[in-house]
Amino acid sequence: MRYAVLGGGKRIRPILAIAAAEACGANLAPLMQHFAALELIHTYSLVHDDLPALDNDDLRRGRQTTHVVFGEAMGILAGDALLTEAFSWLASPADGVPPDRQLRAIVTVSIAIDSKGMIGGQVADLEATGADAAGAIEKLRFIHRNKTGKLILASALLGGILGGGSDEQLQALDRYGTALGLAFQIVDDLLDQEESSATLGKTAGKDLAQGKLTYPAVVGVEEARKELAALLRTAEDNAGMIAGRLNYLAQIARFICERRS
Amino acid sequence: MRYAVLGGGKRIRPILAIAAAEACGANLAPLMQHFAALELIHTYSLVHDDLPALDNDDLRRGRQTTHVVFGEAMGILAGDALLTEAFSWLASPADGVPPDRQLRAIVTVSIAIDSKGMIGGQVADLEATGADAAGAIEKLRFIHRNKTGKLILASALLGGILGGGSDEQLQALDRYGTALGLAFQIVDDLLDQEESSATLGKTAGKDLAQGKLTYPAVVGVEEARKELAALLRTAEDNAGMIAGRLNYLAQIARFICERRS
Repeated sequence: MRYAVLGGGKRIRPILAIAAAEACGANLAPLMQHFAALELIHTYSLVHDDLPALDNDDLRRGRQTTHVVFGEAMGILAGDALLTEAFSWLASPADGVPPDRQLRAIVTVSIAIDSKGMIGGQVADLEATGADAAGAIEKLRFIHRNKTGKLILASALLGGILGGGSDEQLQALDRYGTALGLAFQIVDDLLDQEESSATLGKTAGKDLAQGKLTYPAVVGVEEARKELAALLRTAEDNAGMIAGRLNYLAQIARFICERRS
Repeated sequence: MRYAVLGGGKRIRPILAIAAAEACGANLAPLMQHFAALELIHTYSLVHDDLPALDNDDLRRGRQTTHVVFGEAMGILAGDALLTEAFSWLASPADGVPPDRQLRAIVTVSIAIDSKGMIGGQVADLEATGADAAGAIEKLRFIHRNKTGKLILASALLGGILGGGSDEQLQALDRYGTALGLAFQIVDDLLDQEESSATLGKTAGKDLAQGKLTYPAVVGVEEARKELAALLRTAEDNAGMIAGRLNYLAQIARFICERRS
């Protein structure tokens, strides 16, 4: 578990939650463990996704994947334990936060990653491998929205909910997170095609080699870049609607859309 | 997920939670989904435990295991989704139940099944396979207490916590659940040795064949039966301390200790 979680990574999901809570004017200190739970969840999904029965990947965050180092059984169990620990952290006492707000946060996160969310996206991704182009764009959007998008959205919402955001702020965070989640995966697809494994810290060109549906493959690089720009504008506009004194949400959106790894 | 959960099973964990809540005088109706979450968790642990990288079992509850029918990738993801869904159910609104009680219940369950609980027991079980007899009884107790015992204990506690049990009632449930959790696994070990696969609905004699530590193998059948009887008495005594009008806890303990499958 430590090897998988503490081996680097951009920590984008907890950072999003922190920024959202901060923009809503929250006191961050009692919430850091709850936001860190998002990284446990993200890491669990990577550890399981890399297993031989799924994507069978041996490089992640610039190092050997967890199951390569510790064996397949430990890879499965480490992922299970990370997911379990995440819910323990989400439910742990948070000074000054009403318990009903915490329950709402747990439901929001769990729905984002269940069989109709992240896992549904993973299943669709596995099933779409090698699929022909008919209906490819709809399938691709479903996969992106669920496999990556919903946890990114839930991260922004977690910050807003635990941070005591108003209904208007939560609605803006919803639009912000939805746009950013899609943008994130388009960038990932473009990078997989354009960058080297050394830069990415994971196997590059793998999506194409495995016949996976990707944005540039389905709509072309130019159209993918256009869509990315529109999503960034949506994210920036909605970030601006959350009138916090400290509001890094727009900068984070730009960082995500312009990253090279 | 449906294949794995709805394929039979004794439903002992939710039944324990129901009985504990009932003994504490709770209104059961708003809590049934929360108690059912225990069966999702139990099933997830079976689905993952049966995977080729772990126990590699192809028979469970009298049918082919999930990964045999749907493939290994779906076995992993179905287990993941069952665990996720369980927390969604545990956090879902429960009429008349204070939210802080629900948070406490979620922490209780998640700690029972994390790397220091159920998963820790699974890891110790995998590592102990083929181990020599030195220190075997301590290892075996650790495995039993964690791999099986803690979720059984958590089931009794979940009923007590959500059912609004007093501190005294929760303490009695703690002792009841601890004794019953150990008893459950001793019975499992005895049955694995004595009964056929047809009766059990899972592969019999597998523990011995895989060189696993079991109670009858380490202390002998007679000593195992003696310990079982003592645990049942402890469970019955503590069940009697919860002075509910409806109290089936002692009967459930006897059923568990005397079952033949």
